[in-house]
Amino acid sequence: MSSSTITIVKNANKKPKPQSKEIAFGRTFTDHMFVMDYEADKGWHEPRIVPYEPLTLDPAAMIFHYGQTVFEGMKAYRTEDDRILLFRPDQNIKRLNKSSERLSIPQVDEERVMEYLIELIRLEQDWVPDFEGTSLYIRPFIIGTEPSLAVAPSKTYKLMVILSPVGPYFKGGLKPVQINVEKQFTRAVKGGTGMAKTAGNYSSAYQAQAKAYEEGLADVLWLDGIEKRYIEEVGSMNIFFKIDGEVVTPALSGSILKGITRMSIIELLHKWDIPVTERKVSIDEIYQAYQDGKLEEVFGTGTAAVISPVGQLNWSGEKMDINNGEIGELSQKLYDTITGIQRGSVEDTENWTIEV
Amino acid sequence: MSSSTITIVKNANKKPKPQSKEIAFGRTFTDHMFVMDYEADKGWHEPRIVPYEPLTLDPAAMIFHYGQTVFEGMKAYRTEDDRILLFRPDQNIKRLNKSSERLSIPQVDEERVMEYLIELIRLEQDWVPDFEGTSLYIRPFIIGTEPSLAVAPSKTYKLMVILSPVGPYFKGGLKPVQINVEKQFTRAVKGGTGMAKTAGNYSSAYQAQAKAYEEGLADVLWLDGIEKRYIEEVGSMNIFFKIDGEVVTPALSGSILKGITRMSIIELLHKWDIPVTERKVSIDEIYQAYQDGKLEEVFGTGTAAVISPVGQLNWSGEKMDINNGEIGELSQKLYDTITGIQRGSVEDTENWTIEV
Repeated sequence: MSSSTITIVKNANKKPKPQSKEIAFGRTFTDHMFVMDYEADKGWHEPRIVPYEPLTLDPAAMIFHYGQTVFEGMKAYRTEDDRILLFRPDQNIKRLNKSSERLSIPQVDEERVMEYLIELIRLEQDWVPDFEGTSLYIRPFIIGTEPSLAVAPSKTYKLMVILSPVGPYFKGGLKPVQINVEKQFTRAVKGGTGMAKTAGNYSSAYQAQAKAYEEGLADVLWLDGIEKRYIEEVGSMNIFFKIDGEVVTPALSGSILKGITRMSIIELLHKWDIPVTERKVSIDEIYQAYQDGKLEEVFGTGTAAVISPVGQLNWSGEKMDINNGEIGELSQKLYDTITGIQRGSVEDTENWTIEV
Repeated sequence: MSSSTITIVKNANKKPKPQSKEIAFGRTFTDHMFVMDYEADKGWHEPRIVPYEPLTLDPAAMIFHYGQTVFEGMKAYRTEDDRILLFRPDQNIKRLNKSSERLSIPQVDEERVMEYLIELIRLEQDWVPDFEGTSLYIRPFIIGTEPSLAVAPSKTYKLMVILSPVGPYFKGGLKPVQINVEKQFTRAVKGGTGMAKTAGNYSSAYQAQAKAYEEGLADVLWLDGIEKRYIEEVGSMNIFFKIDGEVVTPALSGSILKGITRMSIIELLHKWDIPVTERKVSIDEIYQAYQDGKLEEVFGTGTAAVISPVGQLNWSGEKMDINNGEIGELSQKLYDTITGIQRGSVEDTENWTIEV
């Protein structure tokens, strides 16, 4: 048997599936998971689908001490005619490798991992929910497992993929959110790990998140770590501004995640002949545009929400109301187009989806 | 039974202990470990000493995805007259809580954790090696364990303490190292997690470390993330410079770890009436001092090495040789004093040590 041939151990005990669209995010997991191991002399080996079960690791496993880990997030959607679609999964696997490079984690064979992913989702296809707005969230992640306290890259790794049925991000449709422009805490800086999907970038944001929640705001808009002036991301999403008919989004500076929804939106806007620019965007510029009545729309983009319209930006007490707190026309059109492609109701002229 | 009363389950299968001072760092673990759990409604509870054994966690446990974790590192030393000493462990536990605050992890009761630590080390006292330069490395760590993919603080945690006998940091005594001044990668920035002992700060350094190793250098000197000009730390140690008779070390800016060896050195220098200043130190200033022949000594400080003399700094090709690549007089004196106090051969006038 080749070490790249997948083995499957089926779970005899099937769990009950969600019976409505009210599914809490990331708390229910399917019956199986994918696992593959890495050792220096064997490379990635023993790809296998096994029952979803606890992981057993030495307490000295490096993941617990030095955070050598990367992850991805994507979704499988069920179409009206009962097909299952993935949205640009090749981009996620490519980004997984990019993140791994930054964290000194060995690269995976992207095509093989795609095959394994599809095999897993095929086996778990009944878990892709068919209620409105629901999907099956896919979480690939790699962890360093060597039991050693030396501050050095792990010699062994585990790649796992777990699946979780999830409800609609916005209950009752798209809903604009209020966002705090964060001035105290920093998410990332040039030369750091901001462009990588790695664990440490997320828990380091909890204090700023908690501060926003206390003020009744939904999320955080991060500024650059150097001048605290240039806009980076919102929460764990990228951000776009429509100013006087033109769309702008912060350029990938090295500290911003290269979002796949972000990329898709830029491609759609090009196709629609709507001017879109990736460049440095300062919070002062946004405030000026707001004062001049030219800040037309603001929206976050990411796998979870696809488009998250921003109804208000709170910058040191200055409250910028955007589009009267309502969903902008472009935000709605982008949302409808991308979710339509993802769910098979809008023609996929870009070949973004893959059928499982 | 009070929830803070420790229970002990003894390990019937004792492992062989190291038979010489040649012990690889952080690869051998003792027979027992300490574990304590946290749940929102119970607080920290069920403190227990159990056989060292694998941890079983859900693959969705938050530690694997969002890196909510903190740790500490300290050592137990065996004295000539067979007592076991800890060096300022109260400071480590205090710092654990500081780190936890930044990572939104619940605080521990510092006095209780100290009692648990001492209980564990007492039980494992035969594991404190008596070969020259050896010690028992102590690794407390806390991980978020809730099985959930929501980007939010975990509702459950585990605090664990594992112990590892370690050999001398420098084989054959103190040895100056060559260090690369890192210009591309960034360790931390104001508003980030640089002051916390948290996993993500360590794996994010691996690429810079690898670059230094390729050039035959032992470690990395980090500059600030904003101007890439001010000195922060070396590797995972703090750094000191002796310039024209005066000792300077970077001030704690929010992105530098508050080292316990660093603190102890500053206190000793004050006591010895040697001028010592905590302030911003730029790499240009160091280069100027070097050119003027005033850069007398450079050394890193940390739990692992205590003092690590720097024999050469490599800054974009400029090689600064320090003290002819030899150990400075002050570095040696600080090393002898602190290791002497730690091992009970120098009088502990500051009450830094605690006998187990």
